[in-house]
Amino acid sequence: MSEDSRWLNDVVWDEQGLVPAIAQDADTGEVLMFAWMNREALALTAEKREAVYWSRSRRKLWHKGEESGHTQRVREIRMDCDGDVVLLKIEQVGGIACHTGRRSCFFQRHLDGGGWEDVEPVLKDPAEIYAKK
Amino acid sequence: MSEDSRWLNDVVWDEQGLVPAIAQDADTGEVLMFAWMNREALALTAEKREAVYWSRSRRKLWHKGEESGHTQRVREIRMDCDGDVVLLKIEQVGGIACHTGRRSCFFQRHLDGGGWEDVEPVLKDPAEIYAKK
Repeated sequence: MSEDSRWLNDVVWDEQGLVPAIAQDADTGEVLMFAWMNREALALTAEKREAVYWSRSRRKLWHKGEESGHTQRVREIRMDCDGDVVLLKIEQVGGIACHTGRRSCFFQRHLDGGGWEDVEPVLKDPAEIYAKK
Repeated sequence: MSEDSRWLNDVVWDEQGLVPAIAQDADTGEVLMFAWMNREALALTAEKREAVYWSRSRRKLWHKGEESGHTQRVREIRMDCDGDVVLLKIEQVGGIACHTGRRSCFFQRHLDGGGWEDVEPVLKDPAEIYAKK
């Protein structure tokens, strides 16, 4: 590895070797998505300057955008006070972070009387995003 | 309870009955902290319009600011596409979210060559914040 990897030891990995990762638009501040990283995912994210997560459901590395083309260019990697959460400041390629075709995954807003409402538009049909080439 | 609580059933709680919660400044978009909530914490957050988390280390409800006075007024509660992450849009009372006396917990920035640097100032000495009254 070209980069000294000791900085990865400063991260407090959980009992499954993972750390929560928040992806935030570097320009607008919007929180776009939340995922998990293992040590290799974070190392690759720093190396490529593109977000790589660990998919807990598929149990494998997930280079965000590998299917959709909606990669995330990483401008900054931040870590919190306890060293157990990572924040990425990114540029969202294609303007769509969510697999539902919305800009942000956080599109459900709690209503005062109870319940949730969708408050962000679908920008692109997921069937189109994930169509086999 | 005055509020219909069925909306809490839409949250996908993990095997420990928790959900990750991100607190974001409602005006500036800054990500201020990350914590966990159980069902009761989220119900109380919606009821009080102030952030209440579940402290995993102390194993009890944690009304943010109960010691420091740095409570978080909740303007909006969002949930992500999978229903397993919560985002709070808040007003940070006292302007300090972090127990280190900084505005945000995410004050460590990864350096290109490896390592981390602190990039946010300590606004108030924690010894002063947490002094016994």
